[in-house]
Amino acid sequence: MKDCVFCKILDGQILAHKIYETDDVFVFLDIDPYTRGHSLVIPKKHYQDVFDIPADELQKLIVEVQKVAKLQKDKLGAEAINIFQRNGIMAGQGVDHVHFHVVPRYVNDMVKMLPRGGYKGKDFEKVIGLLTN
Amino acid sequence: MKDCVFCKILDGQILAHKIYETDDVFVFLDIDPYTRGHSLVIPKKHYQDVFDIPADELQKLIVEVQKVAKLQKDKLGAEAINIFQRNGIMAGQGVDHVHFHVVPRYVNDMVKMLPRGGYKGKDFEKVIGLLTN
Repeated sequence: MKDCVFCKILDGQILAHKIYETDDVFVFLDIDPYTRGHSLVIPKKHYQDVFDIPADELQKLIVEVQKVAKLQKDKLGAEAINIFQRNGIMAGQGVDHVHFHVVPRYVNDMVKMLPRGGYKGKDFEKVIGLLTN
Repeated sequence: MKDCVFCKILDGQILAHKIYETDDVFVFLDIDPYTRGHSLVIPKKHYQDVFDIPADELQKLIVEVQKVAKLQKDKLGAEAINIFQRNGIMAGQGVDHVHFHVVPRYVNDMVKMLPRGGYKGKDFEKVIGLLTN
């Protein structure tokens, strides 16, 4: 898609640090990594977000996410792995081409990711009512 | 598995706010939500993390993650969605039963998730060398 940075990477218009690719999926290093080896997993077809991508394409993607996590553990010595995926500007999505972040974690990497806290309401029953009706 | 909080939820020993379940997957509200409607998606079989779960089970899980994201958008009016999954204590994994967080985001929800920053090294070529050999 025109003006999509990831599509330009896929087209070769923008260089990226490729790890590997399959027929449907492309895996490369995040240009602004949280930690060493922070990788992105994207579909070769342009889909905007989790709402846009067909379920079977999402399934192809998550299998590669798992493989990348294993690579980071085996090859980079990651002690732990954060996987995340953002949809919409308010969720921090920076490129409108659906992607998974795979972030290897190391001893004392100092990444402050996902601190606890936030919503204090506990109207669980009301929420369940909304979600199940 | 004994002493696993999520297995106890699946067994009915601990109550949870269930949204729905399938043959293989259980979906419920996080007891300590980031935002209203923060949900967890887990396999009914006990797997510790992304390294432990078979690829086909992971694929079943991600399809439900997608459904939950759509539910949160349609039923709760979420403006955006954060999806994340943690593996290992250093990544913040609190329960050793693989799970996806699906966090609906709202205007002014004040959740400070995933701030930028962290790793400043740019030894991309070296990392690629490690990951691809």
